[in-house]
Amino acid sequence: MNIAMLGTGLIGTFYTMSLHGLRSRDKVVSVYSRSEERGAKFAKENNIPRWTTNLQEAVSDPEVDVVVVGLPNDLHKEAIFAAADAGKAVLCTKPLGRNGREAWEILQKVEQAGVFHGYLEDLVYSPKHLKAHASVENGAIGKVLWVRSREAHPGPHSDWFWNPEKSGGGAIIDLGCHCIEIGRSFIGKNIRPVEVVCWADTQVKPIAAEDHAIGLVKYQNGAIGQFEVSWCFRGGMELKDEVAGVDGSIRLDNFLRTGFEMFSAPGKKGYVAEKAESDSGWLFPVGDEVHELGYNDMFADMFNAIEQGKKPIEDFYDGYVVNAIMDACYKSVKTKKWEPVEIKEWRGLDEVEPLSAFVEYDENHWLVKEEILPDGRKKVILKEKAGGEIIEKDI
Amino acid sequence: MNIAMLGTGLIGTFYTMSLHGLRSRDKVVSVYSRSEERGAKFAKENNIPRWTTNLQEAVSDPEVDVVVVGLPNDLHKEAIFAAADAGKAVLCTKPLGRNGREAWEILQKVEQAGVFHGYLEDLVYSPKHLKAHASVENGAIGKVLWVRSREAHPGPHSDWFWNPEKSGGGAIIDLGCHCIEIGRSFIGKNIRPVEVVCWADTQVKPIAAEDHAIGLVKYQNGAIGQFEVSWCFRGGMELKDEVAGVDGSIRLDNFLRTGFEMFSAPGKKGYVAEKAESDSGWLFPVGDEVHELGYNDMFADMFNAIEQGKKPIEDFYDGYVVNAIMDACYKSVKTKKWEPVEIKEWRGLDEVEPLSAFVEYDENHWLVKEEILPDGRKKVILKEKAGGEIIEKDI
Amino acid sequence: MNIAMLGTGLIGTFYTMSLHGLRSRDKVVSVYSRSEERGAKFAKENNIPRWTTNLQEAVSDPEVDVVVVGLPNDLHKEAIFAAADAGKAVLCTKPLGRNGREAWEILQKVEQAGVFHGYLEDLVYSPKHLKAHASVENGAIGKVLWVRSREAHPGPHSDWFWNPEKSGGGAIIDLGCHCIEIGRSFIGKNIRPVEVVCWADTQVKPIAAEDHAIGLVKYQNGAIGQFEVSWCFRGGMELKDEVAGVDGSIRLDNFLRTGFEMFSAPGKKGYVAEKAESDSGWLFPVGDEVHELGYNDMFADMFNAIEQGKKPIEDFYDGYVVNAIMDACYKSVKTKKWEPVEIKEWRGLDEVEPLSAFVEYDENHWLVKEEILPDGRKKVILKEKAGGEIIEKDI
Amino acid sequence: MNIAMLGTGLIGTFYTMSLHGLRSRDKVVSVYSRSEERGAKFAKENNIPRWTTNLQEAVSDPEVDVVVVGLPNDLHKEAIFAAADAGKAVLCTKPLGRNGREAWEILQKVEQAGVFHGYLEDLVYSPKHLKAHASVENGAIGKVLWVRSREAHPGPHSDWFWNPEKSGGGAIIDLGCHCIEIGRSFIGKNIRPVEVVCWADTQVKPIAAEDHAIGLVKYQNGAIGQFEVSWCFRGGMELKDEVAGVDGSIRLDNFLRTGFEMFSAPGKKGYVAEKAESDSGWLFPVGDEVHELGYNDMFADMFNAIEQGKKPIEDFYDGYVVNAIMDACYKSVKTKKWEPVEIKEWRGLDEVEPLSAFVEYDENHWLVKEEILPDGRKKVILKEKAGGEIIEKDI
Repeated sequence: MNIAMLGTGLIGTFYTMSLHGLRSRDKVVSVYSRSEERGAKFAKENNIPRWTTNLQEAVSDPEVDVVVVGLPNDLHKEAIFAAADAGKAVLCTKPLGRNGREAWEILQKVEQAGVFHGYLEDLVYSPKHLKAHASVENGAIGKVLWVRSREAHPGPHSDWFWNPEKSGGGAIIDLGCHCIEIGRSFIGKNIRPVEVVCWADTQVKPIAAEDHAIGLVKYQNGAIGQFEVSWCFRGGMELKDEVAGVDGSIRLDNFLRTGFEMFSAPGKKGYVAEKAESDSGWLFPVGDEVHELGYNDMFADMFNAIEQGKKPIEDFYDGYVVNAIMDACYKSVKTKKWEPVEIKEWRGLDEVEPLSAFVEYDENHWLVKEEILPDGRKKVILKEKAGGEIIEKDI
Repeated sequence: MNIAMLGTGLIGTFYTMSLHGLRSRDKVVSVYSRSEERGAKFAKENNIPRWTTNLQEAVSDPEVDVVVVGLPNDLHKEAIFAAADAGKAVLCTKPLGRNGREAWEILQKVEQAGVFHGYLEDLVYSPKHLKAHASVENGAIGKVLWVRSREAHPGPHSDWFWNPEKSGGGAIIDLGCHCIEIGRSFIGKNIRPVEVVCWADTQVKPIAAEDHAIGLVKYQNGAIGQFEVSWCFRGGMELKDEVAGVDGSIRLDNFLRTGFEMFSAPGKKGYVAEKAESDSGWLFPVGDEVHELGYNDMFADMFNAIEQGKKPIEDFYDGYVVNAIMDACYKSVKTKKWEPVEIKEWRGLDEVEPLSAFVEYDENHWLVKEEILPDGRKKVILKEKAGGEIIEKDI
Repeated sequence: MNIAMLGTGLIGTFYTMSLHGLRSRDKVVSVYSRSEERGAKFAKENNIPRWTTNLQEAVSDPEVDVVVVGLPNDLHKEAIFAAADAGKAVLCTKPLGRNGREAWEILQKVEQAGVFHGYLEDLVYSPKHLKAHASVENGAIGKVLWVRSREAHPGPHSDWFWNPEKSGGGAIIDLGCHCIEIGRSFIGKNIRPVEVVCWADTQVKPIAAEDHAIGLVKYQNGAIGQFEVSWCFRGGMELKDEVAGVDGSIRLDNFLRTGFEMFSAPGKKGYVAEKAESDSGWLFPVGDEVHELGYNDMFADMFNAIEQGKKPIEDFYDGYVVNAIMDACYKSVKTKKWEPVEIKEWRGLDEVEPLSAFVEYDENHWLVKEEILPDGRKKVILKEKAGGEIIEKDI
Repeated sequence: MNIAMLGTGLIGTFYTMSLHGLRSRDKVVSVYSRSEERGAKFAKENNIPRWTTNLQEAVSDPEVDVVVVGLPNDLHKEAIFAAADAGKAVLCTKPLGRNGREAWEILQKVEQAGVFHGYLEDLVYSPKHLKAHASVENGAIGKVLWVRSREAHPGPHSDWFWNPEKSGGGAIIDLGCHCIEIGRSFIGKNIRPVEVVCWADTQVKPIAAEDHAIGLVKYQNGAIGQFEVSWCFRGGMELKDEVAGVDGSIRLDNFLRTGFEMFSAPGKKGYVAEKAESDSGWLFPVGDEVHELGYNDMFADMFNAIEQGKKPIEDFYDGYVVNAIMDACYKSVKTKKWEPVEIKEWRGLDEVEPLSAFVEYDENHWLVKEEILPDGRKKVILKEKAGGEIIEKDI
């Protein structure tokens, strides 16, 4: 595949590192930047044949098969519309839009244009997520009851993130989109998110948007997707997920605590890891950031899907649903109550199975719990099916 | 100190193990049980001179200095009233009451009787909590923005917990009381909890009460105490806390993941740890459960306080505040919105400092963020004090 | 118990913190220091009634039941002889002597005097060690094949440690004594250590003694106790053990990585933990050092043993065996080959069971291995009992 | 690149998964198996155009650029000779030979034939190793003093490993080759390994070769590479490294404990991870095994080197050195003393810098140690340059 990369910031850098890494057969052939200097430098450093400051030129390049949008949020719509008009497959970084309305317009555009669209939510492609997700699908932990996804660090690296006009919000729009989709992925993307409650505040930073937020997304089957996002976390970048199922549980650490620890007295010179806060003392580097963050598997899925004429794991409809959930979150922050998630066109299941998992003990009783006590006794707690009374007995 | 132990269940066992462990000068001299058989067995196993099924007899024993209440929640009030009437120091397990009203009556009773009262919230006495708390007090992580306290396991070990008439609720009343007080302890017990939002559901178990709940307690200074409690967690007992401050962060694992891992092919025979779910494969035992859970330091604080005529770290007023917060949580579950915490007599600070921590970059700018990028560049993001605009520059 | 504490250094401080901590009924009533200033200060800070610079006075104090020797290694013998002559129970810190000969003289002295003697090897009393040891005794991991015990930090805190005349050696004598006894404890103190091979070097420090060493102690049944000790480790104090058994394995982290992590941007003020190297960035404090390092359980065992007229878990014979093993290690460093452990009077088993654990597959084959392959196949590898040929087959 | 894969066992499967994974431009075009059935099945499952049971046919296929040898150890020499005669680039799995003599013959053959040769020691290409190695090169931990590399699991998956005729030995030849090269990589491949001491035993398994071994490799500068290998470890596959430097330290967990934990009550169906021992309870899966084990980066280095006419990170000379070290280890096991490493043609440095890192305190003293004590005092331990005496003083 020949790719036009739109954007030369951190995300454009990571995307290009992934695309050009290892022995990939896919290459970035053109890069668009709003700045001549950045464009020229980026092209040179990454061995990209052409660069331009003309968006139209980049997306209509005849050699280009796929346009990758790695621009600030306020430029997604324009870039995607241009790519769609040029008839190119288009992949867009997260979030899709600054709000649900914008995302919906984007979705309609690409569907009307009939072009391939992929939503670059890399964190549901991280190797750990892919394997954990497969385990969940195989029933390893039973039905999923709750997902906690946490992304927290000391704040983003470019000015536009901090400006809600350009970004669409604060930590929710920047980080919450990841966490919400991780929750959807584990709970099931076919299960409708029905309502949310959300707290957000500007606790520390001198900004207008929220720098810290926590939300609960309730799904139709009663499962809860919890997200925690912060731009005031100290100590590096936390990127971790917990999943509780009826029959098991999962914990993932994607960044800190991945089995790599280093103590450096003089200070490791230079770059340690994205959002690391120190370069001496105990450090927690990541082996291969680009791989661990899911970029490699994400692009493989996208390009394989294009070649095979299939839907990728994540497309713009997913991006739209995430924006719709975030809209409801921002509303809940203001109204201070649960708010419904408004989705224009629900494409998943209409009816869902309940989560409850009653275990029968005998004809007349449900099993509530069985436990071994410190003194070696084993006992069961039972509920009478008829009267509902709770009893215990040693066994 | 000579102690009368009321109750012979798991908590009575842990309390007695703590009191009689190591080389303590304090001893349980009398035990009360509702069952003759349990009372006799417990006294014999723990080398306690006397046992009785008569509550009055236990609390009025002239040799007894301190009455420890380790009974089901619905019996706390009666036992405490009896102890207060007998003029004994009284220590009560958590939660103090089944609701705020009951806790308030208990508090008024002991204050009117003028007896010493200690609230046995062991988890703010765990060695890790004590050390982390001291670090927070010393300013190691700056002002506390957020505390997450999670306690989750496969459900309690006695029938009465599962019966809301007796216990006062479900996972919130059983586990939330711990998590809420851990949050208060880190955020500052002088800071008023003002409102809460809470989700609770009966996701899995065949019971009337909630088996899973998540809540946010907002404090007057804007800090958030988050609690997560579950009776449907699989994999043992999670007991972990995270604290985020303006200048640092803390993570504590009190039970699983404490630096002890064991793989056992045939299965370790018998008791592994409280709420463990398996006895083979990979196991995570705790070194000294009674110490790690805070019982030793808790009783040391209580008895030292009695001897020195001081207030212990936790007394019944703390128990009452926790009950008041839980009342607001239960209300929020029903109303689906934030609910105020109603505290009859606030004894902490009336005014509090805000959390915000603006850092000045130069005369005209606030510092928003500084970061080293993968290519080695270092840049700052600034906010103009005057116009409020956000800019970035390389340095 | 009334205790005379000999020594006011770090170990005397830890011992006294343990003895006076919580609500112990045992108290230090007298302290001996070689320095008036230190003795007076120590007594005042620790609320000890009497202090002296006269060893004889300290050990013959009529109120004293037990003498605790917390002095530099070259003073153990003199202090123990004095205590034995005074007819007091005597507890001595590790190592017992500077070499096997000195330890043997000490052992003979206390046995001839008929006084109680306890070897203060705290690390086999750490709560994790006690629980892990109990699991091994219960058969949870089968017969023990190998123990790795590692203690490494940036070097000791007092001058005399660095002077081999006073200490008896370097990192082996300082830290190896712990690790060797941990190995013996897991493998079985009744199993005879037969030979050792040891590497030691002065890699970094400007000293005469070794600052880094690794040794293997082979036991009569073929089990291996591996020790690794270093005075040049950077990053705090490593204190960790691994045990491999026929049916399972154990990992213990006693100091770093115990479920307590803190990031501190400004730096936690003051003392973090023994041998910590930094006070900012990521830190790994220990909840209750004195408890985690085993001091509380160690003194409880010692005093209970004295009261009950029993042998404690560790006595001077154990100290002597450890010294004898270290002597062989120092010899092996020079001869560059395995050296026998010379024990004057072996008090353990004379014959031992072999470790091998053949599993029969069927009448004609031993089972070598069974495995599930990535493609789902399950196969076994077998050895023909008769011909000895190794075959595999899918099952 | 077009590849002929020789061998269809576990290693051939992993290699092919890596080569065909993601969007690589390199493909296996032919596979050789000794069994028709396995060859046909493997080709079909992996979408490989051709398969054969004729080695000569496989290596001389005109479409083939590179021959990958993934056969049992006793077949490496024959396969490499055939590939060299056919003038193909040849990559061989570890160990290169069954002993140093065989490895030397192989090395001479490929050098005389003038073909590209790469040694497939994947574990020095694991993402964590690559990043840790780069940190060491950058001076993050100072000069390397000691490396511990441990690989232990319940034993290999194919019959030939257990037969020393075919494999060349036991756990040393199977796993030690990895650990030894990891040590060389951190210590410096230019530093000559001079002597070894090694213990090995058949502790558990019904076999002729060693199932457990520990060795120390001493380098010319005094650094130590420690390896620990076992076929009797229970609990999965341990693959972990520790590195101690003058100024810092590193810990890597490559397999267990990588930030992925799962509890599964019913048991995750099927394959969990290489050498996992259970499929229920607490499990520690790896995100992307093929990537984490280094296969992707290894093949990228090999093919880039071929295209660019450069030496890869690992070539057959490295394989030869590792075999030479293992020969000395086997000798040491028998002689029970340190044995020199015999290398026919040393291609690294002849002279090396010593490790020692004296720090000057003032004109007359070396700094031995500085420490903060629990009571807040800070002190230094110094050595007089002149007299050599060790003193301490508070500062």
